[in-house]
Amino acid sequence: MKLVLFICCSLILTGTKAHYEPTWDSLDSRPIPSWFDEAKIGIFIHWGVFSVPSFYSEWIWNAWTSSSSAEVTNYMKDNFPPGFSYQEFAKDFTAEFFNATQWAHIFAKSGAKYVILTSKHHEGFTNWPSAYSFSWNAKDIGPHRDLVGELGDAVRKAGIKYGLYHSLFEWFNPMWLADKANRFKTQSFVDNKMIPEMKELVNKYQPSVIWSDGDWEANDTYFKSTEFLAWLYNESPNKDEVVVNDRWGAGIPCHHGDYYTCKDKYDPGVLQEKKWENAMTLDKSSWGFRRNAKLSDYLTPIELLTLLARTVSCGGNILINVGPTKEGTISPIFEERLTQLGNWLGINGEAIYSSQPWTSQNDSLNSNVWYTSRDTAVYAINLVWPESNTVELASVVDLFKNPVTTVSLLGNEGKLKWVINSDRVEIQFPDKATVKSETAWVLKIVSPNKKGNCRL
Amino acid sequence: MKLVLFICCSLILTGTKAHYEPTWDSLDSRPIPSWFDEAKIGIFIHWGVFSVPSFYSEWIWNAWTSSSSAEVTNYMKDNFPPGFSYQEFAKDFTAEFFNATQWAHIFAKSGAKYVILTSKHHEGFTNWPSAYSFSWNAKDIGPHRDLVGELGDAVRKAGIKYGLYHSLFEWFNPMWLADKANRFKTQSFVDNKMIPEMKELVNKYQPSVIWSDGDWEANDTYFKSTEFLAWLYNESPNKDEVVVNDRWGAGIPCHHGDYYTCKDKYDPGVLQEKKWENAMTLDKSSWGFRRNAKLSDYLTPIELLTLLARTVSCGGNILINVGPTKEGTISPIFEERLTQLGNWLGINGEAIYSSQPWTSQNDSLNSNVWYTSRDTAVYAINLVWPESNTVELASVVDLFKNPVTTVSLLGNEGKLKWVINSDRVEIQFPDKATVKSETAWVLKIVSPNKKGNCRL
Amino acid sequence: MKLVLFICCSLILTGTKAHYEPTWDSLDSRPIPSWFDEAKIGIFIHWGVFSVPSFYSEWIWNAWTSSSSAEVTNYMKDNFPPGFSYQEFAKDFTAEFFNATQWAHIFAKSGAKYVILTSKHHEGFTNWPSAYSFSWNAKDIGPHRDLVGELGDAVRKAGIKYGLYHSLFEWFNPMWLADKANRFKTQSFVDNKMIPEMKELVNKYQPSVIWSDGDWEANDTYFKSTEFLAWLYNESPNKDEVVVNDRWGAGIPCHHGDYYTCKDKYDPGVLQEKKWENAMTLDKSSWGFRRNAKLSDYLTPIELLTLLARTVSCGGNILINVGPTKEGTISPIFEERLTQLGNWLGINGEAIYSSQPWTSQNDSLNSNVWYTSRDTAVYAINLVWPESNTVELASVVDLFKNPVTTVSLLGNEGKLKWVINSDRVEIQFPDKATVKSETAWVLKIVSPNKKGNCRL
Amino acid sequence: MKLVLFICCSLILTGTKAHYEPTWDSLDSRPIPSWFDEAKIGIFIHWGVFSVPSFYSEWIWNAWTSSSSAEVTNYMKDNFPPGFSYQEFAKDFTAEFFNATQWAHIFAKSGAKYVILTSKHHEGFTNWPSAYSFSWNAKDIGPHRDLVGELGDAVRKAGIKYGLYHSLFEWFNPMWLADKANRFKTQSFVDNKMIPEMKELVNKYQPSVIWSDGDWEANDTYFKSTEFLAWLYNESPNKDEVVVNDRWGAGIPCHHGDYYTCKDKYDPGVLQEKKWENAMTLDKSSWGFRRNAKLSDYLTPIELLTLLARTVSCGGNILINVGPTKEGTISPIFEERLTQLGNWLGINGEAIYSSQPWTSQNDSLNSNVWYTSRDTAVYAINLVWPESNTVELASVVDLFKNPVTTVSLLGNEGKLKWVINSDRVEIQFPDKATVKSETAWVLKIVSPNKKGNCRL
Repeated sequence: MKLVLFICCSLILTGTKAHYEPTWDSLDSRPIPSWFDEAKIGIFIHWGVFSVPSFYSEWIWNAWTSSSSAEVTNYMKDNFPPGFSYQEFAKDFTAEFFNATQWAHIFAKSGAKYVILTSKHHEGFTNWPSAYSFSWNAKDIGPHRDLVGELGDAVRKAGIKYGLYHSLFEWFNPMWLADKANRFKTQSFVDNKMIPEMKELVNKYQPSVIWSDGDWEANDTYFKSTEFLAWLYNESPNKDEVVVNDRWGAGIPCHHGDYYTCKDKYDPGVLQEKKWENAMTLDKSSWGFRRNAKLSDYLTPIELLTLLARTVSCGGNILINVGPTKEGTISPIFEERLTQLGNWLGINGEAIYSSQPWTSQNDSLNSNVWYTSRDTAVYAINLVWPESNTVELASVVDLFKNPVTTVSLLGNEGKLKWVINSDRVEIQFPDKATVKSETAWVLKIVSPNKKGNCRL
Repeated sequence: MKLVLFICCSLILTGTKAHYEPTWDSLDSRPIPSWFDEAKIGIFIHWGVFSVPSFYSEWIWNAWTSSSSAEVTNYMKDNFPPGFSYQEFAKDFTAEFFNATQWAHIFAKSGAKYVILTSKHHEGFTNWPSAYSFSWNAKDIGPHRDLVGELGDAVRKAGIKYGLYHSLFEWFNPMWLADKANRFKTQSFVDNKMIPEMKELVNKYQPSVIWSDGDWEANDTYFKSTEFLAWLYNESPNKDEVVVNDRWGAGIPCHHGDYYTCKDKYDPGVLQEKKWENAMTLDKSSWGFRRNAKLSDYLTPIELLTLLARTVSCGGNILINVGPTKEGTISPIFEERLTQLGNWLGINGEAIYSSQPWTSQNDSLNSNVWYTSRDTAVYAINLVWPESNTVELASVVDLFKNPVTTVSLLGNEGKLKWVINSDRVEIQFPDKATVKSETAWVLKIVSPNKKGNCRL
Repeated sequence: MKLVLFICCSLILTGTKAHYEPTWDSLDSRPIPSWFDEAKIGIFIHWGVFSVPSFYSEWIWNAWTSSSSAEVTNYMKDNFPPGFSYQEFAKDFTAEFFNATQWAHIFAKSGAKYVILTSKHHEGFTNWPSAYSFSWNAKDIGPHRDLVGELGDAVRKAGIKYGLYHSLFEWFNPMWLADKANRFKTQSFVDNKMIPEMKELVNKYQPSVIWSDGDWEANDTYFKSTEFLAWLYNESPNKDEVVVNDRWGAGIPCHHGDYYTCKDKYDPGVLQEKKWENAMTLDKSSWGFRRNAKLSDYLTPIELLTLLARTVSCGGNILINVGPTKEGTISPIFEERLTQLGNWLGINGEAIYSSQPWTSQNDSLNSNVWYTSRDTAVYAINLVWPESNTVELASVVDLFKNPVTTVSLLGNEGKLKWVINSDRVEIQFPDKATVKSETAWVLKIVSPNKKGNCRL
Repeated sequence: MKLVLFICCSLILTGTKAHYEPTWDSLDSRPIPSWFDEAKIGIFIHWGVFSVPSFYSEWIWNAWTSSSSAEVTNYMKDNFPPGFSYQEFAKDFTAEFFNATQWAHIFAKSGAKYVILTSKHHEGFTNWPSAYSFSWNAKDIGPHRDLVGELGDAVRKAGIKYGLYHSLFEWFNPMWLADKANRFKTQSFVDNKMIPEMKELVNKYQPSVIWSDGDWEANDTYFKSTEFLAWLYNESPNKDEVVVNDRWGAGIPCHHGDYYTCKDKYDPGVLQEKKWENAMTLDKSSWGFRRNAKLSDYLTPIELLTLLARTVSCGGNILINVGPTKEGTISPIFEERLTQLGNWLGINGEAIYSSQPWTSQNDSLNSNVWYTSRDTAVYAINLVWPESNTVELASVVDLFKNPVTTVSLLGNEGKLKWVINSDRVEIQFPDKATVKSETAWVLKIVSPNKKGNCRL
């Protein structure tokens, strides 16, 4: 109950043009711009110099340097001369096939409403021609292009919001290492590199999301995170639209920010008070492309829809990661999963976009069913087709006590038959041969009994 | 009728240990070893130096040299220094992830019964350490491995037959070019290169199939094809098992050889007298891997099954091509299609393997249905699920005139209901919710009315 | 006369531990540490990423970008793919043969007393692992070594002073370009990059010379040159030994600094008031190595000795440049010239090291003779052997008016005969067959008539 | 005496258009074309894929494979990835600076009269587009040019004879290895590769010299050497001019052929009966270029002249090797030595070109003096200038017993004074200051006492 009230209250604040102080109390008082919650589905893109080895994961440099992975150690030893350095991969980040319009088209087909690109990962290589990363950026070496800019233009032209991932720290930047050696009592890295480059990013590309990362080794005062966010909220060119996540220093994730990501692949399975996001990846073992990934490493369509249903049901957005190749292509297996998702959303999107969590998330009787709601409708997403063609649900039984309640299957015309059987309702599915959706079938229950929702 | 008699007659000859003369009359008298027709499904692998650019197709060298493709001309101009030569790609044919056992596992899962690798394509690069291709082979440059040998060992260990593609000619081999300039009155290329290397291949790897290609510019006497085949049939170590195709000189394809391929992607759609093969490729535009291929460039699962049904129904084998990467991986989109095929065959393979063409191929009423047969059964492969759950068939109506006839759906238990309606039979499909196969559903009709088959 | 007095006055100040203000008046009041003038001969080393193309000159990046040289434009077009960037050369700066001890041995054999390496040229690539040039330095990419450190250790172990060249500006550093676009009203480049890196250099390597360059586009206030120099003179760890040149901002060269270089290959031919240096290069067309340099591009031994004689005679030091290869070797043609110089100095070094200019520099009668002096001796360096075996000199005739005066040839024992002939003296050379020096023969004239010298 | 008679007899045969049998008796009866002996000085060029590593020597592949050199083993291990193959060097044999006219100019300046290029070394890489070495030749990979052809055209345009080095065997050619494994009872390599390519070479480039090598592992019957030579002498297009050396099979060198090389750097120091050649190299440790060669690895000018004098005196030609770089340049240190040689020959060439051995070679008293002769002159090449300006010679004393005899120094006008002192003559050198030659001074003794010479 407290939850619902809180959610409704926050709605009232939307639109207020407040001035924010560089304190978490003040910053946290900002209502999250509404587009973000309505979008529900984003595409995450991990692309960088790590896409050249495209082996192990985007953490390959770290794993190699720390000798933490025998697989990486052997790969480097077996395939490169002694003394080879990570920076020497950059030359082969060719991106010769990178066509931002094609990418945007794939993302649009997937049904995603926002796209977030790694502007700079922990390796420090900037995918835009940063003034603060001379000779270690995508214009100076490798692609010889402004990847951040090109993708942003194309994505926005396709009607999709564009956000940027940014790593606060850089594993091996000597200024960072010096500050770290000083136990973060110096801030040379923050002052000379991190803050100038973040402001450059914001001013140049006006990202709708700043997806901060790489924050766990130092606290937010070192990173001057609140100062940056106050500037962002008060003065930046896209201050009304921008949304930020929660990774702004050790101890901050899951506690402050426009929305919470908490940890990678965050998937709580229960309703959250605060807007949150499940950043996950189609390759189960990596965010960056892996040349040697096998089919079994990728999520199946139903695994992806299961995550989508559970996430949206519990109030989250899902941020689905793909790792492009060094050549600039989206591997067909990614395109296939995204297309399958888009096809599903073409039929069932009504249950997702601009939906709100319902009072129940997971049916109390049938764990394969997740709920969302919107206006007078409750949507029951069935991850499994009932063999008997009849599904039994408990959480919605009250809705059916009002005989005006109707139920239908998205994509199919006609009302479905149902019968209440003590504490459950049995709903008769249509003949499967007539059904459009190939998987994860959504029942739409329209009922005057439904309690009102308020925007998260 | 003549057809059936012919087929039955040929059966009589099987097993005869004849001695063959180097004439087509004699060579054509050899019965094709039975394993080949029973296998039905093979995997074709195009892998070579062309897998390094992996752009346009395996014909990129030719297109580049002849300036026949603006796409290729521009690609080479935009991405390589002036003067770059094709041979300089070879160094990057790294194959560092090539694991023949993994490949064999993928092929086994697909249900294929034989695998054919390009031992050497028109580029002349040999995927084995040929004694006749010093410094232009996979041991000397690039992979530094015997790709032909490694794959053969793994494929055979997986219980799959192993064949080799071999190009008679080499676009730019100067000995070939000299013979060509001499209007093929000299045979320096054949004597010093082609024949020695083919015998080396046969003696070393004992391929179950020799898939000859690159024959169209000169006739079979230039290539000494009949002499080679007589040696192969009479003296080679695997003479009892080996099967050859029909590409042995200008005018030979579709006229001589153990089986016919006629032309690439041969798909006649009607029953053929001679055993034949539909060599086709999952990437609609290329046999070699293309880094920039899009999802829409690949066959969908149903497109593949349609080709399979039509091909087997008409007496052909299907040879499904995949193009591995220069790194030695099978791209997940290929693995997905092969796995989908294997899943389908796990339920419906009975209609394919060791089947024979039936008297009808394509139902005369319903073009979405193709027939195969085996013993007392006729299999009706339905490429489309009937919306009404009832299929109407004309070609099999006679079978149903005997009331002992039964019909069932592969993968499902239970007999199906049917009713004869004048010139057609209407068969009632089961409830789709209970059906195992996700696509291309096969009806098995068992009837004493069925005429006997004889092996093709 | 004023000259000599000035020189003597400056001597008085040597050793004073003054505190310097960040003004040129104060800075210029510092006496130059005496080792520098005594050394006379230094080796200049231009080594960097430009050593990878090793074509045209170390200015190749600039010439390429500005299209100012058709030779460079064509070279890049003919040998690299479109879109290739200069940074991509860095990977091939391999330095695998770099052995600092071998280099130091070559330099020691040459007779040079100091060595100056390009720590960073206008390209911005730092030859040491600078904290301010992440991924654009010799540790991160290319050599994977601290070139500045390794050479310094070896050179000093060989008893040679070690200095560092440093370019204030960087052609294409975006921070520099931004300041420049702001007409140098911002100093982001100076504050974030240049000054921190110069202090890092000084603290880490304690160079005996800072050979500043790249100063002409902005003035010294932009560069904060006087502040830096005041810090260097007052506080740096090697403040007593360090010597700086004069390239500290537009208008500064030839006006301020410990010594003057004025312009490249400065060779005034007349005595200078201020200590100066002729920085010249053995490859007449380039400071960086050129792979395609021909023999005729290199100075001959006598050309080098002519420059040495003229320079030292006029109060200068000579800084002889060699361009090592990307592999880390000193090309044998450089080693040959340096060895020839060292052999000459082994016989004639007495006329060079710790010498002072004499009252005359070039003999007024014989332009092939240049003078130096030391204690009671005047040295007449004869660039040409007199065909008659007799040289006629005018400028020294007064010395010979005192019959106690003696004259000998360096490297030969015995006094030479001479005779005064009106305004000139005729000195009889020894039998050439007995002479050690192969070129540039030095007469040593010891005379009580000689005026005293004072240290420059 | 027998020697002289033999030499004179052979002269009689010159010009006879004999037909040669494929036997050594017949082949050895052919008189060597006269241009060869008259030329005296040739340039040897070792250039090939080994010029890419340009480390250790042109034998690096063999040393690496056989692990016979720790230096090579470590170099390969330290600088290349595991699995790297020698063939992968070929791509970097760029030759972008190769200008055959420039080379020819350098060779012409050196005074050499013939130039011999490695058309193919033991690595098997052909520097011309051989029809028998597809993809392992300079046209297909690396230079993308016909190096053999380009150099030949330029050298001949400069008036210099052009010969070709050719290795009979190829270390790692599988056809060779197979023949070797068969103890040379098969000749697949000879028939399919070696003989066709040698005839291609001769027909295409008509070399004036065939400098055969790589013969020691098999005998001449395996190589079919006498058959080839009979063809060359009887039928080849340049049969009147061509000269061959003696490396045509185990046991053949120093026994058969137009002239003898016996072993590398053959330098017997005494007069030889048969025309011979001292093939030596300016880099004392390698024939191929070495990037890490030091100045001390190169012969000094006087070392080279000493070899020249001793060789020509004893009836040999000298073949001076240079190793060009992979970029196609002649390193300046080579150009310097060749230029120094050319300068010396400009003064002293009369004692070398078209000279004949004299009755004495090395003065019996003064080991620094070597003799040649021509017409009525004997030339005494003094490698050392006598400190006393007087040289004492014993071997020529008889010539001076005739008072008509005169003696002068090449490059200087005027007769020299001499005096007989019992068994020796003392010759007074001119004032060294007047002498042109900088080293290795030649006395020309003209005397009626001199015995006639006959052409070798």
